[in-house]
Amino acid sequence: MESVDLIIRNGTVVTMNADREVFPSGSVVVGGSRILAVGDASTEAAYRAERVLDARGGLVLPGFVNAHTHVSMAAFRGLADDVEDRLRRFIFPLEKELVDRELVHAGALHGSIEMARSGVTTLADMYYFEDEVARAVKQVGLRAVLGETVIDFPAPDAASPAAALEYAETFIRTFEGDPLITPALAPHAPHTLEADWLRAVECTSARRGVPVLIHLAETKEEVERIRARTGLSPVAYLDQVGLLDERLSAAHCIFVDPEDIALLRSRDVGVAHNMVANIKSAKGVAPVPRMLEEGLRVGLGTDGPMSGNTLDIIGQMGYVAKVHKLILGDATALPASEVVALATIGGARALHMEDRIGSLEAGKLADIVVIGVDSPAMAPIYDVYSALVYAASARDVRAAIVHGRVIVDEGRLLTVDEAEVRNGIEALAQRVRSLVGRLETTGEAAPDATD
Amino acid sequence: MESVDLIIRNGTVVTMNADREVFPSGSVVVGGSRILAVGDASTEAAYRAERVLDARGGLVLPGFVNAHTHVSMAAFRGLADDVEDRLRRFIFPLEKELVDRELVHAGALHGSIEMARSGVTTLADMYYFEDEVARAVKQVGLRAVLGETVIDFPAPDAASPAAALEYAETFIRTFEGDPLITPALAPHAPHTLEADWLRAVECTSARRGVPVLIHLAETKEEVERIRARTGLSPVAYLDQVGLLDERLSAAHCIFVDPEDIALLRSRDVGVAHNMVANIKSAKGVAPVPRMLEEGLRVGLGTDGPMSGNTLDIIGQMGYVAKVHKLILGDATALPASEVVALATIGGARALHMEDRIGSLEAGKLADIVVIGVDSPAMAPIYDVYSALVYAASARDVRAAIVHGRVIVDEGRLLTVDEAEVRNGIEALAQRVRSLVGRLETTGEAAPDATD
Repeated sequence: MESVDLIIRNGTVVTMNADREVFPSGSVVVGGSRILAVGDASTEAAYRAERVLDARGGLVLPGFVNAHTHVSMAAFRGLADDVEDRLRRFIFPLEKELVDRELVHAGALHGSIEMARSGVTTLADMYYFEDEVARAVKQVGLRAVLGETVIDFPAPDAASPAAALEYAETFIRTFEGDPLITPALAPHAPHTLEADWLRAVECTSARRGVPVLIHLAETKEEVERIRARTGLSPVAYLDQVGLLDERLSAAHCIFVDPEDIALLRSRDVGVAHNMVANIKSAKGVAPVPRMLEEGLRVGLGTDGPMSGNTLDIIGQMGYVAKVHKLILGDATALPASEVVALATIGGARALHMEDRIGSLEAGKLADIVVIGVDSPAMAPIYDVYSALVYAASARDVRAAIVHGRVIVDEGRLLTVDEAEVRNGIEALAQRVRSLVGRLETTGEAAPDATD
Repeated sequence: MESVDLIIRNGTVVTMNADREVFPSGSVVVGGSRILAVGDASTEAAYRAERVLDARGGLVLPGFVNAHTHVSMAAFRGLADDVEDRLRRFIFPLEKELVDRELVHAGALHGSIEMARSGVTTLADMYYFEDEVARAVKQVGLRAVLGETVIDFPAPDAASPAAALEYAETFIRTFEGDPLITPALAPHAPHTLEADWLRAVECTSARRGVPVLIHLAETKEEVERIRARTGLSPVAYLDQVGLLDERLSAAHCIFVDPEDIALLRSRDVGVAHNMVANIKSAKGVAPVPRMLEEGLRVGLGTDGPMSGNTLDIIGQMGYVAKVHKLILGDATALPASEVVALATIGGARALHMEDRIGSLEAGKLADIVVIGVDSPAMAPIYDVYSALVYAASARDVRAAIVHGRVIVDEGRLLTVDEAEVRNGIEALAQRVRSLVGRLETTGEAAPDATD
């Protein structure tokens, strides 16, 4: 009998491995930060565990990957929804006046708690003061790829792209080798950063071996501006600049044609599909079924909570399955099993991390969630993927394990004091409310700087 | 001090009355089956209550109205999702072999529990053995309009339309005057019942003063068949037959043009919009923003749980808000406050019940829900409607009151034994699984009878 740290038993183990094996009453064995074994109930016979987590008939899955967000914007969640010219009237002025180290940390803590409790075990973030995001993410116990923003605009943490790159260098140095945090660079978008700065980002990324996160082909305006300036699509333009490679993950990719898709594929770029945020803002829908046919690396993202409101990936899955069916006029498009794959191993692939996370397999990092099936909506279950995509709620998550550590158990977060974080967010919200009151009165808007 | 039965206090009271009043720390006073008073915290000073329900900072709303479902199909939830020719390969054979009194009752109990726990207080149902649905709905304690199906096809409870009408007469007699149940007639659809039978339904409806529920303009095939036969749209055809009036509620209405909308408006017909089910089946999206401009009575429905999987209305709201924005290319279309109206007073109007339910107002029936805001996704709240539409989950419902009776408290159902109902559903699911195994092996399909 081998001594191990943790056995999860008595659940339906949905591995998301290449064969999509499902063990109706399975076990997952964890030693340290790694999965040692996955299989049916007999799997655990060879092990004696320090701790046993009883899944009580629930679904055991690899942790969900949120492949694109701005977690600190949880402080602004639900603000000025449904209003005209929201970006310039509210988002930019709010960010200009309020985004500082404290807000970034408090927002990231609050948003990370939401993610942990809803089964997200890895996130990719783009924002300012990413060292504060890293601190918050580590406190909660999540895994993250964190991209420090570089933009042609005075940002809360850097007055210029040069200053942002300097900030990023320090950030990278501080967190390199961290078991949970992968520091990264986040050039904002092809049209909000000059080509020379995009090249400088690529150069730093290559030299330090860190990933790059970017917004790409997100709006019609972006496409028009880049085309007017260069005659190229945003994707082709980024390729010309030299940014398309196996270190890049691009969010959105709504306005891409077959040549763009082929280019993204040949350069091994990852794509984060943000369905909920993209349709709420009426931007459009990325051609994900086509991307999957072409073998692209595609995962799911929530975008920031001012865009998509929630940070969980379970809530994205139903939209992804259904809106693509509507658009294609085909009720069999993007079946539930493929959507669960996008939410797990797909997200891992979009971040080029599929060798370490995204499925329950011996040797991978132990990022695991347990989803309860007590809710009446979760019965009967004829197909686990259907239940997950068409009926589950983020609130059904009962346990989350990241890097072998149980951070959520029985629906409760074990790592930080939730009530204290909530109080902090409510206090921040009061400051936001008074600023918004002023913005609504004066009608002042930020200059047209970054879009 | 007047003695009353129940006071709900310490919540944000979202009345959905004509002025859309919201009381940030409000109270609702209930006597018997009615709301006696609604207002700020001072409202309750004049009353002494038998029971006080502390909303603990949650949101207090009128109960949600599920304006179209087939609740008993909860037994088949999630079965054969994403497969080709699902209706004939699975749904019809399943209904033919398995739908009997026992299944209808067990499915309706299970689905009613889901609705109660997710804040639906009134549903409109179309199925077979509606007396069994009525029994289940009353056991759980919900309010319902229940339409006994009339169809040109041998049904589980009636061999012919004549037999179905006879069944319906008995059903109506049994439940007329019931405080919770409104018996109704449900001619299946314009193309699945001959004109003479549609007229017979209308005649019975007029004579007994009962509502009529129908599927209308749901598929392209329906539109084509009716047009080929009559030269009319399904809406215009139903008008010619004499069915369009203030007793009719029509589900779907996807394929309607401006003349159809004007006709539905002038005849005061209610419409149930089933966004999730309609996009999952790739049928299309009803032009609801246009319907609202024209002043139509529109509510939200889930459709049956084989179509939409879940029976809660909270989960519909986000789809309704976002998919219409996508289709119109307008991020300000269907703002959250309008969507909450569709889910509450809109559903009441769609069922012609707005004089009794759909808003929190003195004199209306006491159908009330409390939605908790403890989930991290529910903070901060800058706008209650945004929080409800873009962040809330059906699982956040903490209390439900129907007709003055508390049926859910602290998230627990007080009326029937949930575990026992769940066991019944699991046993049924076993029977379903073995039949489905047989269908998959033989590939036998039902004849093209009703579509």
